[in-house]
Amino acid sequence: MKNFEFYSPTRVIFGKDILSQLGTSIKQYGQKVLLVYGKQSIKTTGLYETVTALCRDAGITLLEYSGVEPNPKLPHAEAGAKMAAEANIEVILAVGGGSVIDEAKAIAAGACYKGSLWDLYSQKASIKQALPVIAIQTLPATSSETNQVSVLTNPETLEKFGARSPHIVPRTAFLDPSLTFSIPLQYTAYASFDIMSHLLEGYFTSTDPFAPVQDGFVEGMVKAVMKSFKKVQSNPQDWDGRASIMWAGALAWNGLCNAGVEGAVIPNHMLEHPLSALYDVAHGAGLAILFPLWLRYKKEAIMPRILQFGRNILEMGDEIKGLSDSVACDTVINRFDEFIRSMGCPSSITEAGIENPDIPELVRQARTLCGLWGIDGYTDADLETIYRMAL
Amino acid sequence: MKNFEFYSPTRVIFGKDILSQLGTSIKQYGQKVLLVYGKQSIKTTGLYETVTALCRDAGITLLEYSGVEPNPKLPHAEAGAKMAAEANIEVILAVGGGSVIDEAKAIAAGACYKGSLWDLYSQKASIKQALPVIAIQTLPATSSETNQVSVLTNPETLEKFGARSPHIVPRTAFLDPSLTFSIPLQYTAYASFDIMSHLLEGYFTSTDPFAPVQDGFVEGMVKAVMKSFKKVQSNPQDWDGRASIMWAGALAWNGLCNAGVEGAVIPNHMLEHPLSALYDVAHGAGLAILFPLWLRYKKEAIMPRILQFGRNILEMGDEIKGLSDSVACDTVINRFDEFIRSMGCPSSITEAGIENPDIPELVRQARTLCGLWGIDGYTDADLETIYRMAL
Repeated sequence: MKNFEFYSPTRVIFGKDILSQLGTSIKQYGQKVLLVYGKQSIKTTGLYETVTALCRDAGITLLEYSGVEPNPKLPHAEAGAKMAAEANIEVILAVGGGSVIDEAKAIAAGACYKGSLWDLYSQKASIKQALPVIAIQTLPATSSETNQVSVLTNPETLEKFGARSPHIVPRTAFLDPSLTFSIPLQYTAYASFDIMSHLLEGYFTSTDPFAPVQDGFVEGMVKAVMKSFKKVQSNPQDWDGRASIMWAGALAWNGLCNAGVEGAVIPNHMLEHPLSALYDVAHGAGLAILFPLWLRYKKEAIMPRILQFGRNILEMGDEIKGLSDSVACDTVINRFDEFIRSMGCPSSITEAGIENPDIPELVRQARTLCGLWGIDGYTDADLETIYRMAL
Repeated sequence: MKNFEFYSPTRVIFGKDILSQLGTSIKQYGQKVLLVYGKQSIKTTGLYETVTALCRDAGITLLEYSGVEPNPKLPHAEAGAKMAAEANIEVILAVGGGSVIDEAKAIAAGACYKGSLWDLYSQKASIKQALPVIAIQTLPATSSETNQVSVLTNPETLEKFGARSPHIVPRTAFLDPSLTFSIPLQYTAYASFDIMSHLLEGYFTSTDPFAPVQDGFVEGMVKAVMKSFKKVQSNPQDWDGRASIMWAGALAWNGLCNAGVEGAVIPNHMLEHPLSALYDVAHGAGLAILFPLWLRYKKEAIMPRILQFGRNILEMGDEIKGLSDSVACDTVINRFDEFIRSMGCPSSITEAGIENPDIPELVRQARTLCGLWGIDGYTDADLETIYRMAL
C-alpha cells in the first residue's frame, strides 16, 4: 500500500422524507442561496416546488440559476459564478445529478476566484477558496455529492477537464432514493455503469501486491450495483435496489476505494471523456461501449486481475476452472460484455448515434488526458486502435 | 435500507513518514496543545521523542498528560479535562491506541463542559462542544481515530459507557503502519479481532432483506483482516499486512458498514463491556471468548446470516453444500472458533485469567447496556447462560 490522504467530510443524510432538514442545513452556512439546477426535470417531478417551498419557509433568500447541461459547459459555469459573486451569495444549493453538482462546485469556486475559471480546470491555478455547496442528488453516479472533483467541458477547445480541491466537497448531501424512482431505465443503466466503471478501472489497473481492503470494497460494491440494477430493471420503484445504487454512487468515487492502491488509474474515463466532450453522448453510455474493448486490448497485461474479477465479482470460479488463463479471460470479458448489453447499454459508437467520429481528435484529447491524469503506456496508435474497435 | 446519517469528516493521512505533517496539521487549530498518552510504550518506541521534537520545531507549546489506561477511567479523564480547561489548551493531541484516543475525546469534551463528565457518558447530557482532537494511532482496532465515539469506565460504579458526538471526531488522524510493527502478536490478535467483531456483529444481527453494499463492505474487510493477520503472524514487520489491518481498523467502526442496515446491533460488545469493566481483561480477548458462544446461543435465529458468513467470508461454500442448515451452521461456527484460536486468543474466561467471575453483576451490567444500546431479546437467564458457557 502506498501513502495516501483520504478526506470525505460530507454529512450524508440518506433516506425517506429527509428534505425536511434542508432549511436547517443550509442556514448553518448562510441565508442567501443560489439554487443551481438543470432544465425541466426537477419541475416535472415536483422537486423544484418542494425545495423552493422548504427554503421559503426557512426564511432563505433564493436566487436561481438553471440550464446546466449534461457534460456541463465552462461559459455557463462562468456566468453562474459571476452571478453568485455579484449577488453576494453565501451558499450554493445543487439540485440534480453529477453534472449539476459539478457545475455548482465550479460556480462555488469561481465566485471566489478573480481569474478565468478555466485556470482551475487546466491546472494553471488551484482552488484556494469556495462557497459552501449543499447537494440534493437525483441521479447517483459520480460521487460528486461526496467528493473533491468537478468536471467541466470547454466548448471552445472541446476539452473536458477536472478540478480537485477539498474546498469544493459538498458540506451536506441529501440522498433520497425515491427521487430516483422516475429516472428512465436507460439512464439508470448509464449511471449504474458509470459507478461500476469508476470502481473497476482502478481495480483492473492496480499493481498492488496486497490490498484486500480496497479490493473487497470494489468487489462488494460492483456486485451490489449489478444485483441492484437487476432489481430496478424488474421494478423501477424498488426501494432497496434504488437505495443501494444511490449509496454505492456516493461511495464509488469519493476516494475510498482506491486510497493507497499502487498503480490504479482510470483509463476508461480517459478514453471516454473525449467522446462525450466531442459528441455529447451520455457519459455512462460511452463508458459502457469502451470498457470491454479496453479489457480486450489490455488483456495480456492484466490477466490476474481479470481472473480475480471473474471469480470474485462475476462468480465464475467453477466455470473458468481448468481453462487456460487466456481463454478464461476471454470467457470473463464476454460475460461482462453480455451483462452490459443486458443493462441496455450500447455496444458501439455507431449504436450510440455517432457517425464518422473524428478519431485523430479523440486521440489528441485522450493523449492530453493521459498526461494530466498520469496514465502511461498508451501510444497514439494504441488509442486509435481502441477507438476503431469501438466503431 | 432505513434512513441514516453518515459523517466521518476526519482527514486521514496514511503511510510512511507522514508525521512530518504533524506541526502544520496541529497549527490549523491552535498553538497550545495537550499531549495525551498512555504509559511507557511511546517512550520505549521513540515515538514520544519524535512527536515532541516535531511539535517543538513547529513552535507549539506542549503540555503533557500521560497515564491513560486500557479501558480508560473516568477520574483520569476528568483530571485531564480540568487541566486542559485551566491551561487554556487549544488542541488535544492523542498518541496511542483506541483507549488513549477515547480518553483524549473525553478530555476534549470535558474541557468545554461545566457539569460532571460522566453526564456525557450516562446520557444525562449530550456533548455540545469540544476542543479539536488530532490522533496518532498506534494500535488500530476501534476506529476511534475516525469516529464520534468515546468509551470510558467509571471505577466507582464499574460501568463502561460510551458517548457519541460529531464534536469529538478527530480532525486529523495520522496512520503510519510502521508504528504498529512493534505491537506484540498477542495484542495484534486482540485488536484484529476487535475489528472483526465490530464488523460481524452488525452483519449477523442485520434483518435487512437487501443491503448488498454494506454486506460487501463487511465481507471484504473481515476477509482482509483475516488474511492480513496471517501475514503479520508470519512476519510482524509485513508492511502490507500491517497497513491493511490499520486501514480496516480506521473504517470498521466509523459508521460506514452499518449505515442504513435494518436491525444491526452489537450484542457481543454488550456482553464484553461488563467483562472488561469488571476485570480489566483485554477488550479484544473478551470479544474473542464470547463471539463463538454468542453465535452458538443465537444460531437458530440467525441461520441464513451464518450460512452467508460461511460462504462469503470463510469461503466454505463447497464444504457445507448438501448439509442441513443446522449442521452447516455448526460447521461454520466451529471453523470460525478454530480461526480465532489460531490467532492466539483465549477461548474461555478462565483461560483469560479470571477466576469465579461475578456473573450476577455481569448480567446486571449487560442488562443496562441492552437498554442503552437498544438491544432486545435477551432475558437475564439468556445473559447468564452465555456467561456460564464462557467459564
